[in-house]
Amino acid sequence: MKKVLKDILNPAAIVFFGASNNLMTFGTGQFLNIINDYKGNVYPIHPEEKEIFGVKVYKSVEDIPEDADLAIMVLPTNLIPKFLIQCGERGIDRAIIISAGFKEVGKVNLQDEIVSIAKRYGIRFLGPNCIGIYNAYKNLNTTWIPYHPKKGGISIVSQSGTFACHPFPYFIENGMGISQSISVGNEADIDIVDCLEYLEDDSNTNTIAVYIEGIRRGQEFMGVAKRVSKKKPIVILYVGGTEAGSRAGKSHTSALSGPDHVYDAVFKQCGLIRAYNIEELFDYTMALASQPLPKGRRIGIITDSGGSGAVMADTCERMGLNVPILSKDTQREMRSILPSIAAVTNPIDVTIDSARHFYVEIPKILLKDPSIDGILLYGLFGPSIYKRFLKLNEVEIDGFAGVSREMLDELLSLCKRYRKPVLASSFIGRRDEEVVAYFQDHNIPVYPSPERASKAMAVLSKYSYLREERS
Amino acid sequence: MKKVLKDILNPAAIVFFGASNNLMTFGTGQFLNIINDYKGNVYPIHPEEKEIFGVKVYKSVEDIPEDADLAIMVLPTNLIPKFLIQCGERGIDRAIIISAGFKEVGKVNLQDEIVSIAKRYGIRFLGPNCIGIYNAYKNLNTTWIPYHPKKGGISIVSQSGTFACHPFPYFIENGMGISQSISVGNEADIDIVDCLEYLEDDSNTNTIAVYIEGIRRGQEFMGVAKRVSKKKPIVILYVGGTEAGSRAGKSHTSALSGPDHVYDAVFKQCGLIRAYNIEELFDYTMALASQPLPKGRRIGIITDSGGSGAVMADTCERMGLNVPILSKDTQREMRSILPSIAAVTNPIDVTIDSARHFYVEIPKILLKDPSIDGILLYGLFGPSIYKRFLKLNEVEIDGFAGVSREMLDELLSLCKRYRKPVLASSFIGRRDEEVVAYFQDHNIPVYPSPERASKAMAVLSKYSYLREERS
Repeated sequence: MKKVLKDILNPAAIVFFGASNNLMTFGTGQFLNIINDYKGNVYPIHPEEKEIFGVKVYKSVEDIPEDADLAIMVLPTNLIPKFLIQCGERGIDRAIIISAGFKEVGKVNLQDEIVSIAKRYGIRFLGPNCIGIYNAYKNLNTTWIPYHPKKGGISIVSQSGTFACHPFPYFIENGMGISQSISVGNEADIDIVDCLEYLEDDSNTNTIAVYIEGIRRGQEFMGVAKRVSKKKPIVILYVGGTEAGSRAGKSHTSALSGPDHVYDAVFKQCGLIRAYNIEELFDYTMALASQPLPKGRRIGIITDSGGSGAVMADTCERMGLNVPILSKDTQREMRSILPSIAAVTNPIDVTIDSARHFYVEIPKILLKDPSIDGILLYGLFGPSIYKRFLKLNEVEIDGFAGVSREMLDELLSLCKRYRKPVLASSFIGRRDEEVVAYFQDHNIPVYPSPERASKAMAVLSKYSYLREERS
Repeated sequence: MKKVLKDILNPAAIVFFGASNNLMTFGTGQFLNIINDYKGNVYPIHPEEKEIFGVKVYKSVEDIPEDADLAIMVLPTNLIPKFLIQCGERGIDRAIIISAGFKEVGKVNLQDEIVSIAKRYGIRFLGPNCIGIYNAYKNLNTTWIPYHPKKGGISIVSQSGTFACHPFPYFIENGMGISQSISVGNEADIDIVDCLEYLEDDSNTNTIAVYIEGIRRGQEFMGVAKRVSKKKPIVILYVGGTEAGSRAGKSHTSALSGPDHVYDAVFKQCGLIRAYNIEELFDYTMALASQPLPKGRRIGIITDSGGSGAVMADTCERMGLNVPILSKDTQREMRSILPSIAAVTNPIDVTIDSARHFYVEIPKILLKDPSIDGILLYGLFGPSIYKRFLKLNEVEIDGFAGVSREMLDELLSLCKRYRKPVLASSFIGRRDEEVVAYFQDHNIPVYPSPERASKAMAVLSKYSYLREERS
């Protein structure tokens, strides 16, 4: 099975059913998404078109000039059996069946039919009723979302096509990298369990985000999830614990859901981190994929604004972390460099102060303090604020607002040296702020709010604790 | 007191203490923020400078050529008494004291001194240790954040300077309008209670967001909050319910916090909506400021993706809303226009379908259905997705991807006609998507995730219920 998923995520050539020159169909969007980036050959099959957006079209899969190793199908539901047989005859034994209209709308027989065709020809497939896959390491995006996040360590496995691709713009906005995303849809053949097994040994994946509406193979899921989560953190979002959620899930991917508390107990037993919404799912994986695990729960908070310091401290304690009062020595050391109105007990509110203190000196003191296990940073004001004051736009980062790349590099090497997690946040800095982009591009997440950074820190601590407990 | 706050938020001319030609100080940033937009005269006072960023400087407040009616002070703490006296002598009886270093760092006597000077001269002031104010209707931003959200109905009252201004970029990103933002800091004179009383009758304010780290005048707060919240919804974020949060708050604004459950009971008794983080605070106010209140809890969900439909349904039920199965008639009406793979029970998953169905026909059916009280919409794919498929950037909205302004206008007029709340969400559409901007600019909030829209809908229903119960 590991080889099957590896094949599907790394095809050498693709046969595509369901693209046309009508932009307003799913199939065409997905086809364009593939040909815009993928380096391998793509062979569209269509009975009438000669070319689709510049790509030569073949009337039948028999006509294609090489042995393609993956078929992608976005066809009217009733045509799937016929074309799946043609693929089998042509020796193509990997497929992604994107078309919906099977078990999730009550057509159980039709779904059974494609399963039996696949068995006959040895075809292994994702779907039906899925959105396909994204492999950043292969520049291959078969989904309908034309955003291509950069390479990274997070892989997504999702019963919903939505969550396998709609968050891509969010990944890009937050400078997050992705490894692979796999939408399993109705799981008629390959399912969530198979995907977890595949990702267990995938060297490009260090963290796994899972979205489910129900688990089909309970025993197998628990066995695999328990094993994999010891090596790689798994964050899971479960929708289906309410009547309406369950109903929606069933008509969506024909998933069989169960009571929330049962699923919750399963997740706990398997060492999974539970997310309660899609933002949590990616907030948590972003931290887990990029940061070393903290040795304990004691967090140091650095802020340039008191309110954010207070909400971070409050959130940390609500989430089970500690924000200890720093030792007299540490306080003295900070006091010697900070303005008199600064707060130094923890949170450390530097107020307005030199960039060097904020980005290097204060983090250094906390990183080397053995009574601190992780650091939260709020602020990150670089040049853009000052540019706006002056109504300027063309000022370079170096030497402006006192922030230099050297300074940020110094912080990055301190983080590496002391191996403690650092999570940043800002209401103001987005990727258009050079400092924020620099952090994100060097694996320090920058959350859009101080509470979200604090919750992600709590999850790092939780996973660290879970792994220790189960090792 | 109402007049006092009105004066401070609508000055005719300002005296500014603490700006210089050094961009890297708070005072200078705040000064630039004011002069960049404010139409009234601003008189900077400085002993040595002749001009500050092009504005003529006066050596003393005695020298200014007109009767300014507001003094803003960003001076070293110890200088405040002296200059406050000079303002008093010059007849300026409104002030914003931004400088920190008073009660919050233990300097109780110094704070008492400025209070007694103010009393002597009849000066009423905000602060000390605050960030000042923003009044969108006056183009006046005295804060340090150089972002100026458009005019709207939300007013902010905050003990933290951070939350009175750091969220401004967030307001702009989400197309949210603001009325006024007031940072009260240490509340040595004007406090939260005064601000609520002022906003009660302020015609530019229809919704109030409050951030507190503790309440100083408990009885008065309860009396006023109870009264105001019957007229205008108040959403409140309280930080201080944990040991670390309380400690941070105390050193931040010298606030006296109390146990979380006590504050929670107070909020409930006063009819306040509680937010647990800053995103909730603004998610909720954004809905309350823009939407009619639902008559009940029954929500219709329209989505172009099943996963988002499922999380909205799940979140709604977790938050106490209902997602009822639609009547046979309503389902039939939808089935007659939607593709066969669409789901029509509720959530309504249109899958990929015409823009007219998504934006007009389906909303219309739900808006006129008497068994539905409010609508959640997920999707909002306009032209930008298609542009990306084609690697184009210069396509006009009209007639592209089937979405036209006329269509959106039709939806807006349906919303107006049926007076039901509509909240939208999308992972993909931000303001750079024309459809999203059009929604936001016409008072339909577009949340960055389906769960956040669902939670905001629950708050609309909660406030509707609270108001009914207490009327």
